Amino acid sequence: MTEPRFDIVAVGNALVDVIAHADDAFLKRQGLHKGAMQLIDAGHAVKLYGAMGPGVETSGGSAANTLAGMAMLGCKCAHIGQVADDELGRVFAHDLKSVGVEFQNAGRANLDPTGRCLIVVTPDGQRTMNTLLGASAQLRPEDIDHDLIRAGALLYLEGYQWDASGPRSAMRAAIDTARAAGRKVALTLSAEFCVNEHRADWLALMHAGQIDILFGNAEELLALAETDDYEAAVAKISPLVPLLVATHGPQGARAITRDARAEVPAAPVDQVLDTTGAGDLFAAGFLTGQARGADLRTCLEMGAICAAECISHVGPRPQVDLSKLVGPLLP
Amino acid sequence: MTEPRFDIVAVGNALVDVIAHADDAFLKRQGLHKGAMQLIDAGHAVKLYGAMGPGVETSGGSAANTLAGMAMLGCKCAHIGQVADDELGRVFAHDLKSVGVEFQNAGRANLDPTGRCLIVVTPDGQRTMNTLLGASAQLRPEDIDHDLIRAGALLYLEGYQWDASGPRSAMRAAIDTARAAGRKVALTLSAEFCVNEHRADWLALMHAGQIDILFGNAEELLALAETDDYEAAVAKISPLVPLLVATHGPQGARAITRDARAEVPAAPVDQVLDTTGAGDLFAAGFLTGQARGADLRTCLEMGAICAAECISHVGPRPQVDLSKLVGPLLP
Repeated sequence: MTEPRFDIVAVGNALVDVIAHADDAFLKRQGLHKGAMQLIDAGHAVKLYGAMGPGVETSGGSAANTLAGMAMLGCKCAHIGQVADDELGRVFAHDLKSVGVEFQNAGRANLDPTGRCLIVVTPDGQRTMNTLLGASAQLRPEDIDHDLIRAGALLYLEGYQWDASGPRSAMRAAIDTARAAGRKVALTLSAEFCVNEHRADWLALMHAGQIDILFGNAEELLALAETDDYEAAVAKISPLVPLLVATHGPQGARAITRDARAEVPAAPVDQVLDTTGAGDLFAAGFLTGQARGADLRTCLEMGAICAAECISHVGPRPQVDLSKLVGPLLP
Repeated sequence: MTEPRFDIVAVGNALVDVIAHADDAFLKRQGLHKGAMQLIDAGHAVKLYGAMGPGVETSGGSAANTLAGMAMLGCKCAHIGQVADDELGRVFAHDLKSVGVEFQNAGRANLDPTGRCLIVVTPDGQRTMNTLLGASAQLRPEDIDHDLIRAGALLYLEGYQWDASGPRSAMRAAIDTARAAGRKVALTLSAEFCVNEHRADWLALMHAGQIDILFGNAEELLALAETDDYEAAVAKISPLVPLLVATHGPQGARAITRDARAEVPAAPVDQVLDTTGAGDLFAAGFLTGQARGADLRTCLEMGAICAAECISHVGPRPQVDLSKLVGPLLP
């Protein structure tokens, strides 16, 4: 087993976020459920975008946001995700490469346009996401560079990306390669609707010992455990994985292994401007701690600090040097 | 002469801004002159974008920024500028339409990609702009809707747009139509290099009585008057136009007509984050005051408040409801 070249290799949606502000009445008129993510088709995207106010475009994608944060913290990262050969695809690729994340999946022929996430931010800082997957759903098993998977200490899978059949097969192939090479595999549950859709698949993977680290927030863990009791959900899920990282918004986060557990409160934030990317950046901080050999509690603290930076501005990628914020915590 | 349907009809570049942060050493390495705007070609744009950090994309264009501000303040606005039929072109059109600005120049066949401005923001909030004009330079005289020009109380011309021959001819045709319809014409000098390039053209227009309102900052007015003495420049230029609006950054602004003058200090700003669009939003506030019949001093105060809002965040378009800020000043 050779030494891994990357701290993390991720498979996830390649999306550009289009962020606009609106009030709660707008969500109601558009039939949008606040705080949720829904998949929309091209027709719906045109209609919704037409109704939205002026936007700001910025690279997004859950796992890609995590990698951008980790790269800023000095980790070596590579991303696998499909963009089209168009302007937004070039924006996505540029923004990852410019922070040092390796990204190779440029557009090929006959792809839908690069995927985008139309995000409505309400005055309370909550984001409501409407995703047109576009090219991102067209990732195929043959687009996986298995040498790259073997080159990463950790394979990180975005639950959102499990939704389309091509990416799902690609991720299954990636898991097999990673495990055969002795690498670890992490899965983030991404959203309650993803859990409801893929519960059987994901529980089967966990029971088969294929998932080493599981990230989920309260809604996702409740859905996975099919219960209304958060403590019961954590108690039911944690034995299924070597490491469970459970985030609970302003109520903090905890990490549970077979023989240890730790818990931290949420890091303080002056003003919640936009929660887009908070979970992604929590994972960035936590996994950077893991890569550096920090203890569980420190990993959680790093996650909380990175999440707090993220929600204090509009946009899902870090806007200040995260290493200055979490550096003092590192061993 | 029928009553104008629009308070303002503008001709200006249709650009999407790509904003990234960098330090002064980056400017030096890239051979960029801080605070300036330069035109770059496609090859240079690829090279510079490749070197820039992660960006945020947001609609820009000097005159378009002014209209976005005026529309937010309740003015009726229309914009003439050329985009291509591509993603960034649709972003530009969406962002204008979504604030109520009429915009019709969608892409036609055989255009270069939609223009973009690569903006590097240094820690002092200064912006250094590098513009690939793309489709924006391909506006033709036949793209001018002369009924639209006649429908505007004011024709507003962006000096930057004077640079390419097609747009220049288009703007000359627009001036003729506006004057024949008894409309007023405003010109913003845009940049020192534009003045140096087009001084003869613009002075000739002023001497011929074609320009009713002239906007310029200190560097531009010094270049136009070919002097190093700001007071001398103002004294030389102001007799050439019925209304001169001279901005001077943190030193404030003044307005001079044949028989009146007013002066205001810059509005206070907590933190200068990004000066991109400050002059454009100054014009938005000033011209809204003019459209509402405010006195010169009030117009200047409105301009100063809108400029201050603009430089307190990243991006050239307003991010808060400007009408709440300047509404109390209106007659």
